[in-house]
Amino acid sequence: ELVEKASAEFQTGMLAGKRVVITAGPTREAIDPVRYISNHSSGKMGYALAQACAEAGAICTLISGPTQLNCPPHCQRIDVESAQQMHEAALKAVNDCDIFIATAAVADFRPLQAADQKIKKQADSDTMTLEMVKNPDILADVANSQQRPFCVGFAAETQDVERYARGKLERKNLNMVIANDVSQQGIGFNSDDNQVLIVDAKGSKALDKLSKAELARHLIREISERFQKAD
Amino acid sequence: ELVEKASAEFQTGMLAGKRVVITAGPTREAIDPVRYISNHSSGKMGYALAQACAEAGAICTLISGPTQLNCPPHCQRIDVESAQQMHEAALKAVNDCDIFIATAAVADFRPLQAADQKIKKQADSDTMTLEMVKNPDILADVANSQQRPFCVGFAAETQDVERYARGKLERKNLNMVIANDVSQQGIGFNSDDNQVLIVDAKGSKALDKLSKAELARHLIREISERFQKAD
Repeated sequence: ELVEKASAEFQTGMLAGKRVVITAGPTREAIDPVRYISNHSSGKMGYALAQACAEAGAICTLISGPTQLNCPPHCQRIDVESAQQMHEAALKAVNDCDIFIATAAVADFRPLQAADQKIKKQADSDTMTLEMVKNPDILADVANSQQRPFCVGFAAETQDVERYARGKLERKNLNMVIANDVSQQGIGFNSDDNQVLIVDAKGSKALDKLSKAELARHLIREISERFQKAD
Repeated sequence: ELVEKASAEFQTGMLAGKRVVITAGPTREAIDPVRYISNHSSGKMGYALAQACAEAGAICTLISGPTQLNCPPHCQRIDVESAQQMHEAALKAVNDCDIFIATAAVADFRPLQAADQKIKKQADSDTMTLEMVKNPDILADVANSQQRPFCVGFAAETQDVERYARGKLERKNLNMVIANDVSQQGIGFNSDDNQVLIVDAKGSKALDKLSKAELARHLIREISERFQKAD
């Protein structure tokens, strides 16, 4: 009931009619038909942002890797598995988009070749080398596209959080980076709470620890204010 | 109701008081605190076998990798993540075990070193090499342990199913191998149905396509019959 009340109060229409695209969840990079490389992203932060966006009146598209979550009301979800699929879906969606928020934990590398058949263990070999190639940088490609939307990145780090976040902001030409330290217990991947640092060209702003639903509303407000100034 | 009825009819006590250890689910092999290698095993077959075992009167221990499933009634579950953790739990449990059923999809290889910190993408490198080492062979080590239980292996293959299954039976010195073709739609990983081939020293026996719950009861019967002859 409290959540519904908070949710109703949040219906400010501050993003009324704006088109927001959000990527969420992990990606899976196939090694063969059975095995893959993935990561511990639950998708919770991205889904919470999608819900907060829809509540703020936005037309929200959620491009999601494999998660256990349900699509929030009034959002459109596009399901993908690999970074390449997410890249393709994002560049297509971004043709018609005001704000792009990249929360997905995209694999930086994928196996050079995904085998068609299950790779058999060789009895005489105790080691195996997996050659990997870099995946396309979805957020950088969106930020460098012709119809560039307002671009928000996320940075999940285990050390030097602010320094890495600012590096990402500048290197990828973003409007904002939202950073958190995933090495801390109780926040970040798979947690229900999160605590972040907002980094933009003007400085850094630390937010208090909040549930991901509450934090999402705060972040949508912060994003919306900066978007309107930039527009 | 039908399931409960079938379940009640299955309470034959054919494994009354026997101690069964079942491994289930995938393993996760850490690349760093964020990334891992895993596979598409849902754990459904192993959990269904654990339930059928308990219904048949066995004292069942389920050693499980990360899954979305609930522990069946009257089973004890031990949660693990990596192949090394599963190996340790299995060799401990097997000291006091009549039948060992290995359904888990254990990673053959793990990264040589799991990094303590998130590995940063190098801007100047378009490729990455992941060096991996072989994991211990849980089933082979159980089958070669001093107090060797009756050993049942599973083989998930994408080609030459029977040949690979028989190779596994002989190489690992097993009592039975239950094999399926995971390249076929609608059976195997993450499906609710399964269709298998039972391979033992005497020959091969194909079972019809069944739900994993029904198939589990058939398999427990097949395992129980062979176990009693071998005992």
